[in-house]
Amino acid sequence: MFRLDPRLEESSRLLLALTLCEARLQDDARYPWIVLAPRRAGLREIEDLDPAAQTVLMGEIVAAGRAVRAVGAAIGFSVEKLNVGALGNIVSQLHVHVVGRRAGDAAWPGPVWGVGAAEPYGEGLLAGALDAARRALGGGAE
Amino acid sequence: MFRLDPRLEESSRLLLALTLCEARLQDDARYPWIVLAPRRAGLREIEDLDPAAQTVLMGEIVAAGRAVRAVGAAIGFSVEKLNVGALGNIVSQLHVHVVGRRAGDAAWPGPVWGVGAAEPYGEGLLAGALDAARRALGGGAE
Repeated sequence: MFRLDPRLEESSRLLLALTLCEARLQDDARYPWIVLAPRRAGLREIEDLDPAAQTVLMGEIVAAGRAVRAVGAAIGFSVEKLNVGALGNIVSQLHVHVVGRRAGDAAWPGPVWGVGAAEPYGEGLLAGALDAARRALGGGAE
Repeated sequence: MFRLDPRLEESSRLLLALTLCEARLQDDARYPWIVLAPRRAGLREIEDLDPAAQTVLMGEIVAAGRAVRAVGAAIGFSVEKLNVGALGNIVSQLHVHVVGRRAGDAAWPGPVWGVGAAEPYGEGLLAGALDAARRALGGGAE
C-alpha cells in the first residue's frame, strides 16, 4: 500500500492525486516547487516503474512544470528555468522535484536541495499558491 | 543544427549517439556520471520536446542508470542510489545528469552539482569506464 514518507508529507501540502503521482506543493516560498510521488509502494528508482508508468511520470513532470510557472505567477516569482530532480539520498522513496528558478534566487545558480531552511508561505500566500497549482494541474480550485 | 555546448563537451567524453540523446561520460572519477543531451537544436526544457521524444528521453534516462551502475562496477564504486537531474542554471542547453551515489561519497547526501572540482579519471581508468558504459548502453566496446 502506498504511504508517503512522513518527511515529504511534513514539508509540503497536498495538491492533487494525478494518474500516477501524488502532487504536492513544497511549503517554501523561496521558490515555486512541486513534488511528485508515484502512488505505489516500494519504489526507489525510476527504473522500478514499468515503461508505461515511466511515460506517465514524464507527462506529469511536464505538467508540474506548467503548474510551477502558475504558482510563480501567483506569488510574483517569474520562472526563468525549471529544475527537475529525482535524488532520494535522504528520503529514498521515489519522488521528483520540479522547481522554478530565477537568477538571484536563494540558491542560484546552484541546486536548491540542502540549501538553507524552508520559508513557509503563511496562510494568506499559501491559499493562492495552492489554488494556482491545482488549476494548472487540471483540478480546479479546492 | 545540434551543437553541444562547449562547457558540456569539455567536462565529458562521448559515449554513444542514442536514438534521441548524445550520451557522455562525465570525466570525474568521484562518481559514475552520465550526461544525456538531446541531439536537437534550441532545447532548454523537457517541455520543449514533443511527448513522443519525452518518452524516448525517459527510456534513455533509465538506460543511462544501468550504464552508471556498470561504470560503478568497473571503477569499484558500488552504486546505492541514482540521482537524476535536469537543471540548466549555468548551461541552459537541455541536458540530463544521471549520477551514481553511495553513502560517504564526495557530496553525500547532498547533490553533486557545484560541489568541489572534478577529478579526471586519467587514461588507464578512463578506458575501462568508457568501455563499461558503452557496453551497457548497447554500443559494445569502441
